[in-house]
Amino acid sequence: MIIVTRPHITDAELDAIREAVERAGLQTHLSRGEHRTIVGCIGDERMLAEVGLATLAGVESVIPVLKPYRQVAREFRADPTIVVVGEGAGAAIGGNELAVIAGPCSVEGREMLFSAAASVRAAGATLLRGGAYKPRSSPYAFRGLGEEALALLAEVRAETGLPIVTEVMDTRQVDVVAEHADMLQIGARNMQNFALLSAVGDVRRPVLLKRGLSGTIEELLLAAEYILARGNDQVVLCERGIRTFETATRNTLDVGAIPVLKRETHLPVIVDPSHAGGKSWLVAPLSFAAIAAGADGLMIEVHPTPSTARSDAEQSLTPDEFTNVMTRLRAFAAAAGRTMAPPNVLHVNTPPDAVGAGAS
Amino acid sequence: MIIVTRPHITDAELDAIREAVERAGLQTHLSRGEHRTIVGCIGDERMLAEVGLATLAGVESVIPVLKPYRQVAREFRADPTIVVVGEGAGAAIGGNELAVIAGPCSVEGREMLFSAAASVRAAGATLLRGGAYKPRSSPYAFRGLGEEALALLAEVRAETGLPIVTEVMDTRQVDVVAEHADMLQIGARNMQNFALLSAVGDVRRPVLLKRGLSGTIEELLLAAEYILARGNDQVVLCERGIRTFETATRNTLDVGAIPVLKRETHLPVIVDPSHAGGKSWLVAPLSFAAIAAGADGLMIEVHPTPSTARSDAEQSLTPDEFTNVMTRLRAFAAAAGRTMAPPNVLHVNTPPDAVGAGAS
Amino acid sequence: MIIVTRPHITDAELDAIREAVERAGLQTHLSRGEHRTIVGCIGDERMLAEVGLATLAGVESVIPVLKPYRQVAREFRADPTIVVVGEGAGAAIGGNELAVIAGPCSVEGREMLFSAAASVRAAGATLLRGGAYKPRSSPYAFRGLGEEALALLAEVRAETGLPIVTEVMDTRQVDVVAEHADMLQIGARNMQNFALLSAVGDVRRPVLLKRGLSGTIEELLLAAEYILARGNDQVVLCERGIRTFETATRNTLDVGAIPVLKRETHLPVIVDPSHAGGKSWLVAPLSFAAIAAGADGLMIEVHPTPSTARSDAEQSLTPDEFTNVMTRLRAFAAAAGRTMAPPNVLHVNTPPDAVGAGAS
Amino acid sequence: MIIVTRPHITDAELDAIREAVERAGLQTHLSRGEHRTIVGCIGDERMLAEVGLATLAGVESVIPVLKPYRQVAREFRADPTIVVVGEGAGAAIGGNELAVIAGPCSVEGREMLFSAAASVRAAGATLLRGGAYKPRSSPYAFRGLGEEALALLAEVRAETGLPIVTEVMDTRQVDVVAEHADMLQIGARNMQNFALLSAVGDVRRPVLLKRGLSGTIEELLLAAEYILARGNDQVVLCERGIRTFETATRNTLDVGAIPVLKRETHLPVIVDPSHAGGKSWLVAPLSFAAIAAGADGLMIEVHPTPSTARSDAEQSLTPDEFTNVMTRLRAFAAAAGRTMAPPNVLHVNTPPDAVGAGAS
Repeated sequence: MIIVTRPHITDAELDAIREAVERAGLQTHLSRGEHRTIVGCIGDERMLAEVGLATLAGVESVIPVLKPYRQVAREFRADPTIVVVGEGAGAAIGGNELAVIAGPCSVEGREMLFSAAASVRAAGATLLRGGAYKPRSSPYAFRGLGEEALALLAEVRAETGLPIVTEVMDTRQVDVVAEHADMLQIGARNMQNFALLSAVGDVRRPVLLKRGLSGTIEELLLAAEYILARGNDQVVLCERGIRTFETATRNTLDVGAIPVLKRETHLPVIVDPSHAGGKSWLVAPLSFAAIAAGADGLMIEVHPTPSTARSDAEQSLTPDEFTNVMTRLRAFAAAAGRTMAPPNVLHVNTPPDAVGAGAS
Repeated sequence: MIIVTRPHITDAELDAIREAVERAGLQTHLSRGEHRTIVGCIGDERMLAEVGLATLAGVESVIPVLKPYRQVAREFRADPTIVVVGEGAGAAIGGNELAVIAGPCSVEGREMLFSAAASVRAAGATLLRGGAYKPRSSPYAFRGLGEEALALLAEVRAETGLPIVTEVMDTRQVDVVAEHADMLQIGARNMQNFALLSAVGDVRRPVLLKRGLSGTIEELLLAAEYILARGNDQVVLCERGIRTFETATRNTLDVGAIPVLKRETHLPVIVDPSHAGGKSWLVAPLSFAAIAAGADGLMIEVHPTPSTARSDAEQSLTPDEFTNVMTRLRAFAAAAGRTMAPPNVLHVNTPPDAVGAGAS
Repeated sequence: MIIVTRPHITDAELDAIREAVERAGLQTHLSRGEHRTIVGCIGDERMLAEVGLATLAGVESVIPVLKPYRQVAREFRADPTIVVVGEGAGAAIGGNELAVIAGPCSVEGREMLFSAAASVRAAGATLLRGGAYKPRSSPYAFRGLGEEALALLAEVRAETGLPIVTEVMDTRQVDVVAEHADMLQIGARNMQNFALLSAVGDVRRPVLLKRGLSGTIEELLLAAEYILARGNDQVVLCERGIRTFETATRNTLDVGAIPVLKRETHLPVIVDPSHAGGKSWLVAPLSFAAIAAGADGLMIEVHPTPSTARSDAEQSLTPDEFTNVMTRLRAFAAAAGRTMAPPNVLHVNTPPDAVGAGAS
Repeated sequence: MIIVTRPHITDAELDAIREAVERAGLQTHLSRGEHRTIVGCIGDERMLAEVGLATLAGVESVIPVLKPYRQVAREFRADPTIVVVGEGAGAAIGGNELAVIAGPCSVEGREMLFSAAASVRAAGATLLRGGAYKPRSSPYAFRGLGEEALALLAEVRAETGLPIVTEVMDTRQVDVVAEHADMLQIGARNMQNFALLSAVGDVRRPVLLKRGLSGTIEELLLAAEYILARGNDQVVLCERGIRTFETATRNTLDVGAIPVLKRETHLPVIVDPSHAGGKSWLVAPLSFAAIAAGADGLMIEVHPTPSTARSDAEQSLTPDEFTNVMTRLRAFAAAAGRTMAPPNVLHVNTPPDAVGAGAS
């Protein structure tokens, strides 16, 4: 922590500042300049969090030197974290092979879910997404099938072998979602729902944490720290576009956040191009850009017939469009030194005929 | 709903669009222009929410005409809502008299709470704030005393007569907070925590709903709609600054949101100048501006000794500073045609000596 | 300047950093912490502007301590600057009396200009605005009458005594505009048009400098510094709303910028509520808020018949609406300890019958 | 144009609206809904620009249907524009081969400029950048060598054959810059300097137009329209990061703007990763992302010794770093179906030994 003082500070004020710092167990070090004196605070600056330094007489500003997060930082863990989702071999996120989570925005029924699962699997997706509980701006919009959807997701996993990612919105749902799903998603609007972060930190399921619409990169890392601090270090971060003045796209994909996060943290980083762009024709270029910038994977909305989707119709790909994106993505993955699962691959526990169904 | 078509749309595409709209129970009305044909959809456009109009061939854009909220709208209720908080006469928010909620960021102990309560009451505050559960960016920061704080708040209410406002962050806490507090606060980071909004919609306590850091005015109204849709129409909206590119202030007080909200909704609107500015010296000018722009009240952080505060030290007023703001505020309130409670007023159930304590 | 080093910096790297600083004529001061060493640079840190400190091996971040502006800073001049506009007594901006600049967005013709001038003067405006050269997003929109408008403005000044404020958009226009107008306005889109800032710094006319749509407060002050650095210290700053994610208002009035600017600089600060809100019904509440927050004046668009205005129709007040705003403003001005010119006041060189015309 | 009326509009109000539209030469078409009547305006809606429709009684909102730009739109020109810069074969921007503009932020002297030019040419850059006039936030910062730099740029072009791109900041400089340089750059801060846009529209030199820090995509296209409207259709657009709340990067690269622009306009689109990220280590991932998203080229700052650069030191690449980016870029270009000039290529008028000098 560095304390910059106002011009003409008195000796008594300076003494009071030093005492406040030293009472918290740190040492101080003065640099007297022409206009300002600077007080360097040496020691664990987190001890100063509850010392109201900025309110002391003569203080102009207080500048932290250390990052406020600990366990998520690169310095804390030398190797990148690889999060394995699902039973058996499962699907790895954060390794050399790209992870692709695909599926419908919300689970609308058995048939559409199985159809979507089969087609995304055939195109090379490694995990299946599908909303059981949906956050919607309006209380009058469709909010998901709830537990019925969870049961369907578990069923489709049994058939296709694809691990399941689904959103949890309420601390009271954490247990039931953790029971059925392989990975718990924290949505953008809940990035700073600290009760929910703590709750998913207490279960032993990987967590997919989406960046909030106005969440800074530092706040995203602190949100992840909440989960790690409770003992769950299986966290994947997801950039999904931030809110800016530009309205031509639904959100603004902060592609620069990818290399910044990869530099700051050992956790895997994926990108959701569907929500970032908000239009199906933007999914391909944003996906390619994300992988080129170093992302570890993608999360893409795919619906058997987008025009009938009960949510996010405009940004959902058809199965054919998704297959096309996956095909073109391979060259970008290779350019980035990454591999991709082959299309139509067999995962654990999946009988060959399920693949046939998926390809049909 | 208005549908704008692409140039060179075919008759078949146009027919498909009309059929989709009419299937949902609305009528269509064509306006053929030189470049574009426009399809007006007549009827309840909310029926179209799950029709993926934007995905149909030939559609360029889909423009809603009706506001997506209903019960919070001025059109729904002719008279302004006045929310009465607390037992007996309680404290009214939304009437001609300004409401002033004041008190410490968090309840740190019995003594500081009683001291803060006495001094804000003496200066004319009409409700007491104090955090029991604190949302903090970092998991390592002080997060409040929890139920112990709730008990202290109930105790201080018994002594001073000030109704209590405190934040609830978790659906599992709603019952216990509703038992102790007079008004439940939904913090900015939970503005779109839809599970929590629904949960406070189910209790019979007034709700103070703060605007999210990147919440639009429309989203704030829809968040309130969540609460009203569950049967709780005692909701007060709170503008507390939004996140912009400017870093000289903690947030940017969106003072224009006040008249916009007053025009759109019958619900009361107050302002939190402490979080908006983030510095104690900004509280006075932002408070005056808020009332001048038509706000129904203020929510201000006051701490007996800000330099020892465990959170928000930099933006907390001392009791003397708060008294000064309240004194100067009277002229602005009068200019706005509003009244203010006299300083040091007696509320229900408050013995005279408690006032003396507050003034000492 | 403070340099924060990376962990595990070598002695050679540290020496190279110190040498670079000392070569620029400053002294260095080391504070060795557990994780980081901090290098304080003592002396005129502006000497370091061209030393690429951040690129040196071992440097994590470089934190400036001094503000980058000089002549606009409070520390540079003890008393607030009062800018006097116009010949004779002129109109003062920055004194105890509020300045109110009013008039049409653009000068559309003789009759409308004289009508507007008479009515704003009757209501108590102290300066007249009117665009001769208009910045328009589209090249196909009306861009002002140019020199013809300048001549009309000079004529209306002769008749009403109101000093003239008009925008200059091109370095080549500075001389002709300075010849006719009393105050040169730099529009928001030109806040960082450094050639234009330098050019108006070279003339001896007061300058009204509007904040850019995404200009920070610091950048606004540096833009003013450009003008002062050329020898023209008659500069008035104007907050007119910034660009944010919110679309309910045309821009977001950053009301907090007013007290921040008043604290940082000795220059006067006024507010343009017309562009900030973008709707005529928002002008009153935003004007009241601006004065309550400490602004030294307002700039308001008034048009005899807004529905026929060739630009900014939606945000222009009618003369009656303007009179109403001015009347109600008086109580807020008084609350803020400010005076206002009486309505219908006579200025220099104005025959009484002109007033009668204005009031009719 | 679509006009949405308020509920309970009177027939007289509706008639007045229709008359206003029809007076401007358009036809109207009514759709009467349950709550609102909608007035479709059929014809050239640009005729309505100066009709203050939004101010008419009974009007709730006015929604444009047509895009406000014309000549820059895809609909205006079927084929993509390819801008050829420089004499002879020149360098093409917008064709299948990627364009790479590289060089120092500012021209600091003869030796550094020639060294930079030789090294970027050796690595495969197709155009040379170098600032003669520099926009700087502070009036006390280095602002370029001016005409001396222009002469050096012309000299280095003669030697290396690289066409020259340099910024013009003032209408009075347009002629002299056009005389020496091959392409005129309009910087981000001047995107809406309409006088300058018109001035470069009048010369016969290609223009590189950078997006403003808070410029929307639509405003960027309208700024280009200013240039085309004056008869100069050789315009290249440049995304260089926008201003958002995120401070981890200097700006936020709006990668989604690339596909949006490519869909909306026939003009080429390039990206400046140096200013977008603001850190040298971000240039590689942002460059790869830009090309993956469909950009036609890049503009990258390269300095022989960044630590001595007089501006933008932190974001400049060394020649070795630039060579490395260019080498890795080839795989991404191929994935995007684009070609790149081979490294060390000979351009017109360049003797072989100049190449040797560059590679040494």
